[in-house]
Amino acid sequence: MKKTLGYAAHNHNTPLVPFSFERRDPMATDVRIEILFCGVCHSDIHQVRNEWGSSVFPMVPGHEIVGKVTQVGSEVSNFKLGDTVGVGCLVDSCKACPDCNDNLEQFCDNAVFTYNSPDKHTGGSNYGGYSRQIVVNQDFVLHVSDKLDPAAVAPLLCAGITTYSPLRHWKVGKGDKVGIVGLGGLGHMGIKFAHAFGAHVVLFTTTPGKAEDAKRLGADEVVISKNADEMQQHLASFDFILNTVAAPHNLDNYTALLKRDGTLCLLGVPDHPHPSPAVGNLIFKRRRIVGSLIGGLKETQEMLDFCAENAITSDVEIIPIQQINEAYERVLKSDVKYRFVIDLASLK
Amino acid sequence: MKKTLGYAAHNHNTPLVPFSFERRDPMATDVRIEILFCGVCHSDIHQVRNEWGSSVFPMVPGHEIVGKVTQVGSEVSNFKLGDTVGVGCLVDSCKACPDCNDNLEQFCDNAVFTYNSPDKHTGGSNYGGYSRQIVVNQDFVLHVSDKLDPAAVAPLLCAGITTYSPLRHWKVGKGDKVGIVGLGGLGHMGIKFAHAFGAHVVLFTTTPGKAEDAKRLGADEVVISKNADEMQQHLASFDFILNTVAAPHNLDNYTALLKRDGTLCLLGVPDHPHPSPAVGNLIFKRRRIVGSLIGGLKETQEMLDFCAENAITSDVEIIPIQQINEAYERVLKSDVKYRFVIDLASLK
Repeated sequence: MKKTLGYAAHNHNTPLVPFSFERRDPMATDVRIEILFCGVCHSDIHQVRNEWGSSVFPMVPGHEIVGKVTQVGSEVSNFKLGDTVGVGCLVDSCKACPDCNDNLEQFCDNAVFTYNSPDKHTGGSNYGGYSRQIVVNQDFVLHVSDKLDPAAVAPLLCAGITTYSPLRHWKVGKGDKVGIVGLGGLGHMGIKFAHAFGAHVVLFTTTPGKAEDAKRLGADEVVISKNADEMQQHLASFDFILNTVAAPHNLDNYTALLKRDGTLCLLGVPDHPHPSPAVGNLIFKRRRIVGSLIGGLKETQEMLDFCAENAITSDVEIIPIQQINEAYERVLKSDVKYRFVIDLASLK
Repeated sequence: MKKTLGYAAHNHNTPLVPFSFERRDPMATDVRIEILFCGVCHSDIHQVRNEWGSSVFPMVPGHEIVGKVTQVGSEVSNFKLGDTVGVGCLVDSCKACPDCNDNLEQFCDNAVFTYNSPDKHTGGSNYGGYSRQIVVNQDFVLHVSDKLDPAAVAPLLCAGITTYSPLRHWKVGKGDKVGIVGLGGLGHMGIKFAHAFGAHVVLFTTTPGKAEDAKRLGADEVVISKNADEMQQHLASFDFILNTVAAPHNLDNYTALLKRDGTLCLLGVPDHPHPSPAVGNLIFKRRRIVGSLIGGLKETQEMLDFCAENAITSDVEIIPIQQINEAYERVLKSDVKYRFVIDLASLK
């Protein structure tokens, strides 16, 4: 066992504070990672504040982890000391069910998430990436190219794969007209990937001030979604709309913009239900409403490789960990372009 | 022009009564059909009672038409006098849009439905199949095999294609576990087709008394959907669920039964919205909620041919047209196994 430092929430309504705890010694197939950077995902805030009702405290959040390998178990062949690596939302799964067999570990009923999940090694809950180091089974560790800025890679491990996976699964590419709803941590990656895949990309936002930046990120058009006239001009014209907004809103405004056989993909679970979507919008053009959840390990590696080849990373604002509580407040006000990333060198 | 007899609604709240009107003389590409049988679709009742708000009176309903060719225009090559033919929900479309080019005329923005649609020939609204004859462009007339009972074929033109099309589109077949929600005009055809395609078919019904008949029709299992324990046993096990129930109900009970990547297909538009479906049910297994609408002409012919090869027809109760108003009341009470079909020989 090795002592390490992190930042933890001890309660759903108190700030994160320094926290000392132990990581297991690597077993034969484990990799020990010195964490360099960890992204701040909105779901960290939901978990810390127990908004999903399943939080166990103390909780060390963080599932957008980039670091260096500092120790490997005796059977680790895929990683060596000094490798730059990533860890995302998953650290284990059953490896035997149909989902695992299809490389879709995110859907495994026994998937172990990176924090606030049962830790079979300690019997408690596991701790995430707001810490100096982590020990992870090699199958859940990803290679990160040294061509990329490691701080800007961190958000790819959740925000990146969460947008990459549905765009790939529903085969978005050249000739497609694709909408991205919301310009935040997910939305800005959605724009980058859809643009990189060759689609015509339209950002939907309620904030006119975001238009210029959206175009810099790769959007071809920006539609102010509160403007009914502007929405009307795009009726029945989209192949795919990736909706990153979790706040309850009227989905009919988007299903109406889909072509026949078009797909509205939801990435966020609203805390109160969306208004019930109009079934007629689905029936009269054979449209679909679907959901998507992060991605499997194989696809996450594929995404990281694609990012290395195409020089794609997140737009980040790097903070020392001592600013994490203020950062949470700013995330809640959407006051970040577009992801906070913690520099763990600040944690001493 | 030729005088013909029908039954019409003159108002949203009065019974259907005998009605005399004219059909156009066949143009070069038209076929005149003596109607033998016409099915009674629940949507006829919605239209007659103006429940969709777009009814034009007088209205002659009916879009499940089987009859004999009695006259053909000079350019009609595909049909000859005496042929048994069908007409479904569509009698025209633009023939130029992407939907028409893909043989999906049901989604054409300028599709002309068989009744209560603008009739470019008369300038008024067109009249449907509760009548002795109809004149239709040959592209919207279907061949019906004489191997099949023409009365039992009639409902295939709407209830049949409405269930056949989504089962085909989402590639339901051998090895699939398929649910059919509701045992009525649509549901009984859904069971027959899913069974014929080789799927393991489960009927969901609120009525225990329907179990035996569902099995006769081809269901392998029957689940009483009000019984939570019984539903629970089927969690995350279905590839596809065809939901024929238009009355508002909780869709989460069905999305939860889908496997990862499974599809819940809705066929009915509720008059009040369903409770808003839980987005988490979609995200955590990448499930889909979709809609489907009848089928195009090419697929409708394919279905009729499939039915002839596999001896599939609807289970019908034949009535003289004088009983149409009582039949409507019985449809509203689900008191029919499983489709009323009007014998137009009764109309003199």
